[in-house]
Amino acid sequence: MAVYTEVSFEDLERLLEQYDIGAPLSFKGIAEGIENSNFYLQTDRGAFILTLYEKRVAEEDLPFFLGLMEHLAERGVHCPLPVKTRDGRSLTTLNRRNAAIVTFLTGIALRRPDAAHCASAATALAGLHKAGEGFGLSRVNALGPKGWRPLAEAIYGADTIEDGLTALINTSLEELVSHWPSGLPGGVIHADFFPDNVLFVGNLVGGVIDFYFACNDAFVYDLAIMLNSWCFELDGSFNITKGQAVINAYRQQRPLSEAEIAALPVLMRGSALRFLLTRTYDWLNPDPNALVRPKDPREYSKKLRFHNKVKHAREYGL
Amino acid sequence: MAVYTEVSFEDLERLLEQYDIGAPLSFKGIAEGIENSNFYLQTDRGAFILTLYEKRVAEEDLPFFLGLMEHLAERGVHCPLPVKTRDGRSLTTLNRRNAAIVTFLTGIALRRPDAAHCASAATALAGLHKAGEGFGLSRVNALGPKGWRPLAEAIYGADTIEDGLTALINTSLEELVSHWPSGLPGGVIHADFFPDNVLFVGNLVGGVIDFYFACNDAFVYDLAIMLNSWCFELDGSFNITKGQAVINAYRQQRPLSEAEIAALPVLMRGSALRFLLTRTYDWLNPDPNALVRPKDPREYSKKLRFHNKVKHAREYGL
Repeated sequence: MAVYTEVSFEDLERLLEQYDIGAPLSFKGIAEGIENSNFYLQTDRGAFILTLYEKRVAEEDLPFFLGLMEHLAERGVHCPLPVKTRDGRSLTTLNRRNAAIVTFLTGIALRRPDAAHCASAATALAGLHKAGEGFGLSRVNALGPKGWRPLAEAIYGADTIEDGLTALINTSLEELVSHWPSGLPGGVIHADFFPDNVLFVGNLVGGVIDFYFACNDAFVYDLAIMLNSWCFELDGSFNITKGQAVINAYRQQRPLSEAEIAALPVLMRGSALRFLLTRTYDWLNPDPNALVRPKDPREYSKKLRFHNKVKHAREYGL
Repeated sequence: MAVYTEVSFEDLERLLEQYDIGAPLSFKGIAEGIENSNFYLQTDRGAFILTLYEKRVAEEDLPFFLGLMEHLAERGVHCPLPVKTRDGRSLTTLNRRNAAIVTFLTGIALRRPDAAHCASAATALAGLHKAGEGFGLSRVNALGPKGWRPLAEAIYGADTIEDGLTALINTSLEELVSHWPSGLPGGVIHADFFPDNVLFVGNLVGGVIDFYFACNDAFVYDLAIMLNSWCFELDGSFNITKGQAVINAYRQQRPLSEAEIAALPVLMRGSALRFLLTRTYDWLNPDPNALVRPKDPREYSKKLRFHNKVKHAREYGL
């Protein structure tokens, strides 16, 4: 949850002079997104989200994120559409922060999606992968294998969280980096396709939000992130019914190649390691201004240990 | 800003079964109210606020607060209207908290209201005082003179905030408690009528919110709280034009008696002391879970020092 930077009504009025979106009727800071300050804005012409970008989002990445949302929205993906200023810019500044206004999406994130929700979300993920084609900008995955080692080296005291966590991280890191697949079909991926970022209206996906980790990488890596975050139960068990629902719905939109299927187990481990690393780091180095509890890294050490025993994509429901 | 208790979509669905307000379309934690957890809820039938009451609001006071909002709303005051469950209750429970759903009010709080806004708000305050008549419940002002001494005694180290603050508090406390006026016209007051709690649509008051300090006390004490929070400029000077706007607009709705006018200077000092005390205490004892920066007590020590030199209500614009 986050409102790091305050915005007064007077700041808002000044900002809205740059836009042609009507007069403000309601304006509230919302507890959403841990990286930025977000506000719900209602005007006489519609509902919007105002985002002020805080330091964790690199300024040079903003044209990629905003341009991507525009590209996807134009191709029918239900994602926030950046609203342009009168002089055609998606990005502006407010209170010494970069800022953007995007359309507000109806829908609610589920904490415990069922198999039908999983299938709808997987269909949306495949649609997003296809719609990203032709987007002119690219962004390296800063949290891909090359980013893991510096992150692991910055972690001190992982064993205070869980016995053997340092060894698990180091062993997995060496093995995954040396066996990481290349040449898989790829393009723009969401890279944070968790249930928090998918808004449902009933059983249908009303919107996909939070593109601030999006980057260019293997599509099946995005599918692995989704399987990791949608298909485990609270008790840590993998729900193969949900796994099947995700994989089948995805394949109906975008077939998986033999190479992608073969790579899935190692990508499941890799994506588990990626979230294990950032959660472990954030757990040991909490940001005093973050206004949010760090997420428990043990959720992902458990998942990584599960994947270490998996031999074939069949075990995920393929 | 505050979301102390999380509410999942599944929790929400379970809650909404008790109500007849339609299906949820949007649900977001909002950064509003420092005492409770608040969520914006949109359904196919309207917009609402869900509040979960945290420990700072006493359970036994909830019928007063909710009943008051209902009483006022029925009499035309633009305030949140508690929505009843199917079996007629305004109050329910969720995630081990007392909880209520109220209607969402359009409008935006201003940080720097001008004299016209001050007049509109004062008209609304007088309307609120008149509309409270006949409300069947009552609540002692826990932050009135009798509450100040225990609060002052719980404060250690005020001089670390500002030289002489302890002496200012103690001297003012003794003098005010021994000269506190009694027998003034009274009834239900808002007791926290700050610009944050008045929502404007253009120059008109669209709503008054946050009734969680409301109580029975002298009406003119509420006016003093308003003058203190609306009529000082950021540089600490009292803006007599705004003071006149407030007092004149208020008097047009509810005439002030000689006794009320005579009491105004001491009530200005008293209401300044009341906010100085709570802010000083909160500054020295920050709640680690509060997710909000304590407000600067020096704003109110400055106001109190200003009032200590005032001899007559004329100096406030009467």
